[in-house]
Amino acid sequence: MSFKYYMPTRVFMGNDCIVDNREALKSLGKKAMIVTGAHSAKINGSENDVKKALSMMGITYLVYDKVMSNPTISCAYEGAAIAKEYGVDFIVAIGGGSPMDAGKAIALLAAQEITEENLFSGVYENKILPMAFVPTTAGTGSEVTQYSILTNDKVQSKTSIASDLLFPQVAFLDEKYTEGLPINTTVNTAIDALSHAIEGMLSVRASVVSNALAKDCIEKIVNSIPELQQAMQVSSLGKSNKIPVLSPEKREDLLYASFMAGMVIAQTGTTVVHAMGYSLTYFKDIDHGRANGLLLGEYLKLVYENNPDLAEKVLKVMKFTSVNQFIEMLDLLLGKKETISALEILEYSQKAIQTKNMGNCVVRPTEEEVRKIFQASLD
Amino acid sequence: MSFKYYMPTRVFMGNDCIVDNREALKSLGKKAMIVTGAHSAKINGSENDVKKALSMMGITYLVYDKVMSNPTISCAYEGAAIAKEYGVDFIVAIGGGSPMDAGKAIALLAAQEITEENLFSGVYENKILPMAFVPTTAGTGSEVTQYSILTNDKVQSKTSIASDLLFPQVAFLDEKYTEGLPINTTVNTAIDALSHAIEGMLSVRASVVSNALAKDCIEKIVNSIPELQQAMQVSSLGKSNKIPVLSPEKREDLLYASFMAGMVIAQTGTTVVHAMGYSLTYFKDIDHGRANGLLLGEYLKLVYENNPDLAEKVLKVMKFTSVNQFIEMLDLLLGKKETISALEILEYSQKAIQTKNMGNCVVRPTEEEVRKIFQASLD
Repeated sequence: MSFKYYMPTRVFMGNDCIVDNREALKSLGKKAMIVTGAHSAKINGSENDVKKALSMMGITYLVYDKVMSNPTISCAYEGAAIAKEYGVDFIVAIGGGSPMDAGKAIALLAAQEITEENLFSGVYENKILPMAFVPTTAGTGSEVTQYSILTNDKVQSKTSIASDLLFPQVAFLDEKYTEGLPINTTVNTAIDALSHAIEGMLSVRASVVSNALAKDCIEKIVNSIPELQQAMQVSSLGKSNKIPVLSPEKREDLLYASFMAGMVIAQTGTTVVHAMGYSLTYFKDIDHGRANGLLLGEYLKLVYENNPDLAEKVLKVMKFTSVNQFIEMLDLLLGKKETISALEILEYSQKAIQTKNMGNCVVRPTEEEVRKIFQASLD
Repeated sequence: MSFKYYMPTRVFMGNDCIVDNREALKSLGKKAMIVTGAHSAKINGSENDVKKALSMMGITYLVYDKVMSNPTISCAYEGAAIAKEYGVDFIVAIGGGSPMDAGKAIALLAAQEITEENLFSGVYENKILPMAFVPTTAGTGSEVTQYSILTNDKVQSKTSIASDLLFPQVAFLDEKYTEGLPINTTVNTAIDALSHAIEGMLSVRASVVSNALAKDCIEKIVNSIPELQQAMQVSSLGKSNKIPVLSPEKREDLLYASFMAGMVIAQTGTTVVHAMGYSLTYFKDIDHGRANGLLLGEYLKLVYENNPDLAEKVLKVMKFTSVNQFIEMLDLLLGKKETISALEILEYSQKAIQTKNMGNCVVRPTEEEVRKIFQASLD
């Protein structure tokens, strides 16, 4: 079997990296469309910094700030129509996974005609608007992947567009935009990144490079868990949900871990954990990172039963001696779990085993095993 | 300070990866020039595999196999003239660092007019012939860097062309081409890769990504040292120098370590160790990897004296508790050391401290300290 490495995005990291490296925007064009959600980019300072950098480079821009959580296909078409109408040269996406996923689809749809039927085909002309991405959560890693995950009502799930065209040209990672994140978002996104790194190690496409990055990412996140738990406690004592308990250094660790985990899944894809999690998000509105976290422990248990060496590799990085220790750690972060009915388990399991993600699993569960994981993972 | 990550080369790894992934050559053009040395690519099978893959894709080719060790500027101009004469679309470089370094310069010079005076300026038009690289030693990592190092008689040293244009489009890593390498080449190239990874960790440009890759690379090489030492012993007992003592798995580890170390220096550059080593190669014909190995221990000692935390980070990855343990390990690999005169030390030190590499050093030695490192490193 041959392995592949490819991740062509140019990444800038550090305080004020957008303004300091604004020259990198120059080659992308003269007119930008900022793609973001309604609020957070305005509050955390990222939108201002982007506007400042664009202005300093003499680049004009318009703002499309209508991206919702778990963006829909119609949001992507709407954004693309506006980009075309205004003759936009490139896209700047700011936010968590949602604006970044939407930004990629908009960049693709603004550059070529693709019917909704063919949107997830993976077969496109070789053109797309260039993209510059600014993550403001530390979870998705979308700034360095070739995936755009959209809510797809036709199949009642989230479906991914996957194409090397979707790698952004530039990404800017500045932890200060994540400082005001509520603790629950911080925890859920950290779990998402952890899941990416662990699933990457459990993928048939894992390579030396993806494993090296995954290990470092897992270490960073596991080392952050005491602070995350502490922040959760302070928050549960009734203080504001927006507590700046985490140090900027820890925020930066988490942002970089999420970036490295993005580089991992750009090589490895994700596994059954993501495939199962999509139903929890689509039908039960469970946050994406949390959904992965709910399922990850039980899947690692199955891996352990079928391929103990592989599971041990992951446990060793976390300095755990059993899968149960890992599940206990996750349980502390997840708190009270959602319920799931027998009928839901049946439906979601059927969906999960039909996904492409299944082909990435070194330990590929049967439908029966998927049902058992759902059963054991939720209440 | 902001950090950067960029490495856009598409890398294929594994047995038969050239032929299996020949589609990747298609977008590079219809006529290729194979750039290589006179012998090794013909013996180890890599040239045949490249020709086979090109033929299967309907790509015609010519062969320029005149690249010498430590290639000269005139070699690059000669190769470029031939590429232009025959209207070549892209370059396939096969070999160790020398053909790859030459291949990059040829690709640049074939696409635009650059005078010898401006060759190292870093200021070029935005055009170059596309490149596909096949490393057949496990040391340089040139297949994933933006550097071309040429012998520069005007300054009596090796000088690097550095430009993002020089990243190859594609690299193919197949350990089987390294299986017949003599043990001294295997050791010297492994030391070169180790030096890249360690110097990367000691660079002011070290980032989370470069450090994650460097650590994994260092572990892989240090774990290979018992086998390397064993192979050296067998070799010294008078058996052929070309002994297949290392297992294919170990060869693969070393090849991937060298690739990851290339990704590291693509981000971090190299330090005073390389700057000093260039004189040992230029004036005393000491192999490039060996030259780094001779100097690396004493430089790490200086780092330890000035920034013990930084040196400890490197030592910890190797599971050493002192710099002397590291030096002992290197000494076993290096055997009898070359001599150096007081006059040579003076001259080489003056040269070293004028290089760009000095700016990369977290612990930047004075000229006096550079002299001391030379003094302590050679006999």
